[in-house]
Amino acid sequence: MTTASPDAGLRASSPAILFDLDGTLIDSVYQHVAAWHEALLQSGIAVSVWKLHRRIGMSGGLFLHALQREIGREISPEQQATLTQLHAEGYVRRLPEVTPLPGARDLVHYLAERSVPFAIATSGAGRTAARSIELLDLQVEVPVVTRDQVERAKPDPHLFLAAAQMLGVSPMDCFVVGDSVWDLLAAQRARALSVGVLSGGYGREELQACGAYRVYADVQEMLDRIEEIGVRPAV
Amino acid sequence: MTTASPDAGLRASSPAILFDLDGTLIDSVYQHVAAWHEALLQSGIAVSVWKLHRRIGMSGGLFLHALQREIGREISPEQQATLTQLHAEGYVRRLPEVTPLPGARDLVHYLAERSVPFAIATSGAGRTAARSIELLDLQVEVPVVTRDQVERAKPDPHLFLAAAQMLGVSPMDCFVVGDSVWDLLAAQRARALSVGVLSGGYGREELQACGAYRVYADVQEMLDRIEEIGVRPAV
Repeated sequence: MTTASPDAGLRASSPAILFDLDGTLIDSVYQHVAAWHEALLQSGIAVSVWKLHRRIGMSGGLFLHALQREIGREISPEQQATLTQLHAEGYVRRLPEVTPLPGARDLVHYLAERSVPFAIATSGAGRTAARSIELLDLQVEVPVVTRDQVERAKPDPHLFLAAAQMLGVSPMDCFVVGDSVWDLLAAQRARALSVGVLSGGYGREELQACGAYRVYADVQEMLDRIEEIGVRPAV
Repeated sequence: MTTASPDAGLRASSPAILFDLDGTLIDSVYQHVAAWHEALLQSGIAVSVWKLHRRIGMSGGLFLHALQREIGREISPEQQATLTQLHAEGYVRRLPEVTPLPGARDLVHYLAERSVPFAIATSGAGRTAARSIELLDLQVEVPVVTRDQVERAKPDPHLFLAAAQMLGVSPMDCFVVGDSVWDLLAAQRARALSVGVLSGGYGREELQACGAYRVYADVQEMLDRIEEIGVRPAV
């Protein structure tokens, strides 16, 4: 006769962390908004800036799809390519204003020291993401999944599923940490729990409405309250 | 014996409208945010951009007060003057990107045609506000109250009280229309009802939590539903 361990079938006791990048670890959302707004103005497309803000962090394809419905006409594939290129150039031009968010480096180092598995999963392109991640000066090897590596970006779950796979953990053992509703919706679809941060400019209630387990001002506050998500301090 | 009119003591049946400017009539909030962020970076002061966004629309004095608590040190009066000047320059440099918000001109013309009294009340300085109002190309005379004309700006009620006075109406007969929590809190303090608009980038629930009577996407949606605030269409 075999005796089952009392822990059999329970989830891992300490979760892995899947970070969004822009607005979560890096203070770059408003520069992305400005770069999109500039690209659209240059292309003669008028859209209110707040509506761009609300769509940062979703896949570029879905962003352009929503945009076409918004302006009530189609944007040709050539113009879409031009917009994407103009946005990338405009963002790179704004990089000198972009800084890590408070607590980002400390939280990453905290997790690394305790061997908590973590990764970064971003709807951004590999090239742009690499420039942003450099700013974090992480000094540890962090698995990164970018838009180019998956079929679909947020709010589809692919980025977080791929990141969990890179860590060798189930998405159900992960906390997604993100600033946008797209992160939190993608987390739900990946069956991960999520932590919302206000540092991308969304309101607390918007993130709560997307099922956030907890909402913090930024990753500094998340670090200050890290026990709330089950990551235990070293004894 | 005199018989009281059944209407005696009731509020006026059609309200006056007190508009905020930035983020309500003009799509300028993100340019103000960028201008403040740039001014602070140039002065060696690091603040997360979303925290600047959340404070746009409050009085400049209160903004700098909150900022000092945020960064944990005092900013000298000279440096405050420099920051204010750098912000104004940065905003003016971004004016080519600033446009009226959808529905702004139409709503103003709708009100003017129906002789509904309305005014603009902004925490911005007179000079900057004048440049923004030009963009609206209003073609009607609109009373404007700016920061320079009152003792205190939002969330103090002075701007809206002064605007109501210019219109010769009680604040209790006014609807304040604004995008920020500072507009809606100032409206409460002025005993006016308020309409929140999402076009400044706040979330719906944040505006509802400040007592908004209604929240619309922007003034275009407000115009589409103008009966909800008691402004009746012409017969």
